Amino acid sequence: MPISISIRTDSRIDMIDITSMVQKKIMDAGVTDGICVVYVPHTTAGITINEGADPAVCMDIMTRLDELIPRNGSYRHMEGNSDSHIKSVITGSSITVPVERGHLVLGTWQKIFFCEFDGPRSRKVYVAFG
Amino acid sequence: MPISISIRTDSRIDMIDITSMVQKKIMDAGVTDGICVVYVPHTTAGITINEGADPAVCMDIMTRLDELIPRNGSYRHMEGNSDSHIKSVITGSSITVPVERGHLVLGTWQKIFFCEFDGPRSRKVYVAFG
Amino acid sequence: MPISISIRTDSRIDMIDITSMVQKKIMDAGVTDGICVVYVPHTTAGITINEGADPAVCMDIMTRLDELIPRNGSYRHMEGNSDSHIKSVITGSSITVPVERGHLVLGTWQKIFFCEFDGPRSRKVYVAFG
Repeated sequence: MPISISIRTDSRIDMIDITSMVQKKIMDAGVTDGICVVYVPHTTAGITINEGADPAVCMDIMTRLDELIPRNGSYRHMEGNSDSHIKSVITGSSITVPVERGHLVLGTWQKIFFCEFDGPRSRKVYVAFG
Repeated sequence: MPISISIRTDSRIDMIDITSMVQKKIMDAGVTDGICVVYVPHTTAGITINEGADPAVCMDIMTRLDELIPRNGSYRHMEGNSDSHIKSVITGSSITVPVERGHLVLGTWQKIFFCEFDGPRSRKVYVAFG
Repeated sequence: MPISISIRTDSRIDMIDITSMVQKKIMDAGVTDGICVVYVPHTTAGITINEGADPAVCMDIMTRLDELIPRNGSYRHMEGNSDSHIKSVITGSSITVPVERGHLVLGTWQKIFFCEFDGPRSRKVYVAFG
């Protein structure tokens, strides 16, 4: 089984900072240099990297995605979560970050966020190395 | 030459499930563990991972992308496919998936889709490992 | 420190072709085969791969992103650059390209573009290998 991180989301849409959990998996695996891939095995969730200092940034990201891809559009998929699938396509299913001396090489303001688009649910992400 | 998969698309926009073709290339290459990158060398096509069970999901994805980035907008590029280039930027040119014991580690509902935005054409994707 | 490329952007939004700079870093590192990751450590910039032959394509990409995510929307983040953060989420923070015999395996029309969404600024990208 791949290295995985379990996440519990609390609302329909949410962005959860998982940076420290990913960093811990790098430590546990003893990886020092290369690239780290964080992969989302769900089709109604995504992952992204953006600012973690001001929570308003995440709110603006989620609000604008909702305006561009509204929940109540005229969709064919009957489960009521087509917007979640489309948002997942837009953010993508994985992020890749360089690792140096055992640490994620992130910019000053960057955090890794799990993006919930159809919660609340129990979710997981995989961490792999290249 | 990199490992490549040839695809023939039949209409202007389309999403084609290439999961089993990618899985076969992993087998052929004898790769057991690491990460698999599937790369699109075209500027009017993309690649994504999403639900493969209900075809309505792909229809909803393509329809909403078309609504957000219409074919007949006021573009400067004169070839009539600016929308295709922009959709390619939004989906991205590659996906990355962990590999374990020779298998793609996909979620239950996930399939890898080649996204045609300016077909019908003969296309290809590259498969590389990290 | 990771391998990095410094970039100076001249306007608020811009797409800068960094393909030859990335290729040079591959040469300098002596990498022959595998995958190359180009990573943006900023939260108001992005990276993408698209057509480099006709500059109108980049203009169309940036114009449509601006129409979908206007600078003067009703955002909560008070720094006046929420649109830049959201555009960064949409393009993504990294691209991954196969490398063969020391060369990026790009398609005929593909170039790697640094996407400035909140310039002018001094920026950098990291180049890593998997």
